Amino acid sequence: MAANKAALAALIEALGSDGFTTDPDRLAPHLVEWRKLYTGTADGLALPRDTASVAKVMAIAHEHRIPVTPQGGRTGLVGGGVPDGGIILSLERLRTIRAIDSLSGSVTAEAGVTLMQVQQAAEAQGLLFPLSLASEGSCSIGGNLATNAGGTAVLRYGNARDLCLGLEVVLADGRRLDGLKALRKDNAGYDLKQLFIGSEGTLGIITAATLKLFPQPKSRSTAFIGASSPHAVVALFQRLRDGFAEALTTFEILPRFGLDCVLACEPGARDPFTAPYPWYALIEFSSGRADAMLSAQLETALGNALEDETILDAVIAASLRERNDFWKLREALSDSQGIEGASIKHDISVPLSAMADFMVETMAACEAHLPGLRPCPFGHVGDGNLHFNLTQPKGMDRAAYLALWPAFNRIVHDRVLAVNGSIAAEHGVGIQKREELERSRSDAGLAVMRAMKLALDPLNILNPGKVLLPKA
Amino acid sequence: MAANKAALAALIEALGSDGFTTDPDRLAPHLVEWRKLYTGTADGLALPRDTASVAKVMAIAHEHRIPVTPQGGRTGLVGGGVPDGGIILSLERLRTIRAIDSLSGSVTAEAGVTLMQVQQAAEAQGLLFPLSLASEGSCSIGGNLATNAGGTAVLRYGNARDLCLGLEVVLADGRRLDGLKALRKDNAGYDLKQLFIGSEGTLGIITAATLKLFPQPKSRSTAFIGASSPHAVVALFQRLRDGFAEALTTFEILPRFGLDCVLACEPGARDPFTAPYPWYALIEFSSGRADAMLSAQLETALGNALEDETILDAVIAASLRERNDFWKLREALSDSQGIEGASIKHDISVPLSAMADFMVETMAACEAHLPGLRPCPFGHVGDGNLHFNLTQPKGMDRAAYLALWPAFNRIVHDRVLAVNGSIAAEHGVGIQKREELERSRSDAGLAVMRAMKLALDPLNILNPGKVLLPKA
Repeated sequence: MAANKAALAALIEALGSDGFTTDPDRLAPHLVEWRKLYTGTADGLALPRDTASVAKVMAIAHEHRIPVTPQGGRTGLVGGGVPDGGIILSLERLRTIRAIDSLSGSVTAEAGVTLMQVQQAAEAQGLLFPLSLASEGSCSIGGNLATNAGGTAVLRYGNARDLCLGLEVVLADGRRLDGLKALRKDNAGYDLKQLFIGSEGTLGIITAATLKLFPQPKSRSTAFIGASSPHAVVALFQRLRDGFAEALTTFEILPRFGLDCVLACEPGARDPFTAPYPWYALIEFSSGRADAMLSAQLETALGNALEDETILDAVIAASLRERNDFWKLREALSDSQGIEGASIKHDISVPLSAMADFMVETMAACEAHLPGLRPCPFGHVGDGNLHFNLTQPKGMDRAAYLALWPAFNRIVHDRVLAVNGSIAAEHGVGIQKREELERSRSDAGLAVMRAMKLALDPLNILNPGKVLLPKA
Repeated sequence: MAANKAALAALIEALGSDGFTTDPDRLAPHLVEWRKLYTGTADGLALPRDTASVAKVMAIAHEHRIPVTPQGGRTGLVGGGVPDGGIILSLERLRTIRAIDSLSGSVTAEAGVTLMQVQQAAEAQGLLFPLSLASEGSCSIGGNLATNAGGTAVLRYGNARDLCLGLEVVLADGRRLDGLKALRKDNAGYDLKQLFIGSEGTLGIITAATLKLFPQPKSRSTAFIGASSPHAVVALFQRLRDGFAEALTTFEILPRFGLDCVLACEPGARDPFTAPYPWYALIEFSSGRADAMLSAQLETALGNALEDETILDAVIAASLRERNDFWKLREALSDSQGIEGASIKHDISVPLSAMADFMVETMAACEAHLPGLRPCPFGHVGDGNLHFNLTQPKGMDRAAYLALWPAFNRIVHDRVLAVNGSIAAEHGVGIQKREELERSRSDAGLAVMRAMKLALDPLNILNPGKVLLPKA
């Protein structure tokens, strides 16, 4: 649906010529997502500076029935911010940290504040905002909440949803919901913020959030281990969780193939071990207490796991530098994997008790489907969440390989659904997984989702076509 | 609205004569809430044994437009389970623990399983289900989730909402949402369970839930302290949270008047100190690790707080028996308070940074309004949540005192709202706080709540009249 002239004029009138543009050069970077998988179209770009202006944009869009695609830091992986006509509503200029309250343990930040800026604001108060993702320097807190972002500290602190105390939201018709409360307990009516978190901009525009802060960790221990199989890695996880409970903060799995990719293309990356192992885990423990025992206990626990052959090798970081070296191996994996060719990606979660069998069987099924395929499942195994990526066989045509994406979806996602897992664990649905979403949810579930959408956005102007497939 | 004969016949047909009754004697206990503040009416009581039967009840109720009041353990405090005509749907016979998965850290329990049974099932696996409330022996997990229950371990583990991984729900028309997933990350479409948690049975009937389990604490320390003022108690909280972070599990405040009530009527209760103090706190620390340092660090921290006169006295439990004695003082407070006469109760939360001033000023305002009044604010101060109870002046007529409830609502709730707090922190809205809810939420917030209700229960048969006031 195109924006008509009257609407464009009203938007310029409301936002000024600096706040609304139809200039193709200024629009261009907002039409593609960063991996260049999707390209969209739009008639204009709104760049409001405050919530009142966001409300004006939505009121005008509502009056003229113009689709609005909200954008944050544009780091999404499923096309959720790629417009399909109408206008783009960028939240990038809403970048004020409105309040920080160290006693209440809360910070109120506008949607366009980057995740890193929130982390830094907390740190300046001696506090921690624990959400942590690869894109934290560019992604914005509004986008983190709209997609219910996960990352590497979910095991300990939860997802973005769990870190949100309150939201300010502009509704489809421009009305404003002011729910910026800093309360740990609030049952005064329906918890409306939950509707908007994780709904990818299809139910309302998040303009600001009040977030939970935590005491900074005062002690930390980081280990890198080698193991023979996913079963061994999961067995170690269970043992460490039983022994360390809340101190277990991060538990990430990497296959040897992934480590090879990182070692091949990341400057300064080095293998922590002298021998290669089939699987690795990066494990971090932390405590909010000054706690000299943490490293000693970890040493004992890993020593025991070596002795009874649960794992094959282990090293505990002896310095901050060594810790950073371990983390670099994990953080560089996603980009490094590209060096070996095209990658078919899945972002799945399964119950932990199904994880090891799922990994082994699904890798085997994928390899049987395409001999020479190089599976590279990695990520947040402690959360039951893997980036189940599949690197093409050596020498295969890139496009021919990527054409197999739907076939591999069937192999991977059908196994995910068979163990009651999720086909969209932390990256969301966007455009990319709409069809898979329809397969994965019941008719009643989809009907309730559509009922929510209809109740909150009856004209279907909020990020239309995302999450839910347009109805035939 | 009355249930017609055809509907009653259909219900008997569906559930059998044991599963549906109109016998006044069997209905009677389901018409009152336990504090006897509210009494309702109903034409029948459905006692289904499984989710399929709950679905049948709702399909029939929907077809005949009969109001349905869901009931769990009937321990609510705001009249949320008191029927106003139509039929009662008791979940008490859905009491199977369907699965427990120690590796995934999850348990799936039907709605009628008591909280204590869930705790015990977890314990049998060496795990912890941390939700903990005074009524845990009788309240049911369905009710805990429908009201987003809080309690004494929220500081560390969160509310019922935070402990829920998945829900099975029967919708108003009998359709079933099967969302019993045991996943830590799932962004495959809208997170529908969030709609039902805390909505007090007005949007759907929770029939089963998958809940998060945690490692059992392996070390624990419990302290009881005396202090001069709410400011001192909050200052101690801040210091202990900074020093102990995630190990701080419980932080409860009690006024001297409350302790006096407990000492007067609880057998075996004894004052931990030889001198009286104006305020007390019960504080518990726990760690999932075997951690010999916890008590020693606590001793140092409390020693410092005594030395710099943040607090007036402190004792650390030297035995399990002493720990239980401390807890008894807190747990008996709510009931003991009745010994001194009628109580006007509020269940509020405020940001922690506003807490101490709020307490002092609101107590003063209440006492100014009614000389002789004995304020008894107590509870989960670490969560910002107080049961702001007010005991009548000695000798005042009980009914005359209780008639002042609306006037005290204005004094207490208006101050709560002035600091952006909540007038219903953990007990919910039910019947009791509908009017106050209307005052506390914006027009847009109420409109979105009504839109949710209309989308999920267009015939208004699910617990009608609860949470939202009937429209004029």
